[in-house]
Amino acid sequence: MDVGIVGLGLIGGSLGLELRSQGYRVLGVSRRPETCERAIAKGIADRTSTTFDILSAAQLVFLCPPLDALRPTVEALIPHLDPEVILTDVGSVKAPIVEAIAPLWPRFVGGHPMAGTAEQGIEAAQSGLFRNAPYVLTPTETTPPDCLATVAEVVRSLGSEIFTCSPHQHDQSVAWISHLPVFVSAALIASCEAEADPAIKALAQQFASSGFRDTSRVGGGNPELGMMMAQYNQQAVLRSLLTYRDTLDTVIDQLQHQNWDALNRQLHNTARDRPPYVAQPVAPSPDSPP
Amino acid sequence: MDVGIVGLGLIGGSLGLELRSQGYRVLGVSRRPETCERAIAKGIADRTSTTFDILSAAQLVFLCPPLDALRPTVEALIPHLDPEVILTDVGSVKAPIVEAIAPLWPRFVGGHPMAGTAEQGIEAAQSGLFRNAPYVLTPTETTPPDCLATVAEVVRSLGSEIFTCSPHQHDQSVAWISHLPVFVSAALIASCEAEADPAIKALAQQFASSGFRDTSRVGGGNPELGMMMAQYNQQAVLRSLLTYRDTLDTVIDQLQHQNWDALNRQLHNTARDRPPYVAQPVAPSPDSPP
Repeated sequence: MDVGIVGLGLIGGSLGLELRSQGYRVLGVSRRPETCERAIAKGIADRTSTTFDILSAAQLVFLCPPLDALRPTVEALIPHLDPEVILTDVGSVKAPIVEAIAPLWPRFVGGHPMAGTAEQGIEAAQSGLFRNAPYVLTPTETTPPDCLATVAEVVRSLGSEIFTCSPHQHDQSVAWISHLPVFVSAALIASCEAEADPAIKALAQQFASSGFRDTSRVGGGNPELGMMMAQYNQQAVLRSLLTYRDTLDTVIDQLQHQNWDALNRQLHNTARDRPPYVAQPVAPSPDSPP
Repeated sequence: MDVGIVGLGLIGGSLGLELRSQGYRVLGVSRRPETCERAIAKGIADRTSTTFDILSAAQLVFLCPPLDALRPTVEALIPHLDPEVILTDVGSVKAPIVEAIAPLWPRFVGGHPMAGTAEQGIEAAQSGLFRNAPYVLTPTETTPPDCLATVAEVVRSLGSEIFTCSPHQHDQSVAWISHLPVFVSAALIASCEAEADPAIKALAQQFASSGFRDTSRVGGGNPELGMMMAQYNQQAVLRSLLTYRDTLDTVIDQLQHQNWDALNRQLHNTARDRPPYVAQPVAPSPDSPP
């Protein structure tokens, strides 16, 4: 099968390496000629081009541009496509993408490989990135079953663990475990910074240790990731944040009224409830950009 | 100098090991005879006893019982003390302790070694635990200067970095960087658990990765630690939580009104503001119990 990849960064490049090792013929497209050259040199693609015409031979195309470039990319791509070709994307939010792309190209399957590294770009591409990592596919009622089957077959060859759910279910679940933590964590940093006594703030900076380090990590990370989450997954993130505020209000109330029994139950519950979320082997972060 | 230690757990035991290696004669007290025997066997103390009379020879006594046992311990200890002996404690909250103990024994200096491990008890005791870790001393207007100087001299011999501040400044600064993260993190777990759709909750558990793992860690930890923070540092924790809720409300408002410029500034600020809190070498966690 000939597989096209549009966008040869970390995810697109790693897809190319893995797909070629599985025997697929990979056709890569990047706007930058240097990236096309590197893709050939690194064994990411069999052929590359800065234009879409190379993709007329593909039966399946992975769309790996930044989220905000996805729709214009598909619009520009369509004139070059065989009517039977299947499109799939790798964006970390699904409902707005599926709603935008499926009407343009019915043979589309939303996807999200939950893999990444701290590095970006084609030089960070690596084989094995998707192995044992979750790879979510989000078909809808209008998704042709043969398209889902083909994408699943190719994704399975990456060694990923496939999950299938609705775009909404995907977006709400990643809002809970990936996007909400960013805003919860950012608010922690901003709150400490709000301390008006400079002596207390200086002591806090000196005393901060592993607890603060871990809890503040994702909130002090790349602002572009947080903006992507907020803008593309606004409704699900907002729903999570409003639930979070209710939970926080309960804790504040327990402290204000010295309701120690209730607070104690709450803390025992969270100690009990955390393990199912962290029982997986430490997988690559799903916080990586699309 | 003869130094007494009451309570031979992780902190008391580690103090004994380090103080003996610095040439101090260590007199250890534990309620349990087996702990006294282990303290001798491990080189934690020169002499041990299950009763306080051994401490009549001490010039300085480290009080290392659980927070809720501190006041009754001092009350029981007083009849056995030389009037010139200096008392210091190792509790992780300072204002309520200083307020409770200083009236009972004016030659008292509040202290908090910010060191710990995940393990507890005498078997976890280790030399070097306090080296390069912050050690906070919290004198007040009524603390005799010679008592502060003596405690500081002994603490310096542990290799700790000494900080001196008021009990209130200590409690508010640890509220920000040690206690607030626990409740922020616990509320994250509780919020995810509040998801009513079991399919979304199951996906969230499957998809959770390093971001959730880190942000939820201290909230899923030992409930007794969280209760100690809430009960003994109630006012400072509450003040931090109320500021946190205001910060969170601002973020929610930015999302609701798609105020992307403001949210973007906020996320850039948190990325800029985090490093001073995590610039220290990774020190042992201050989340350890007293």
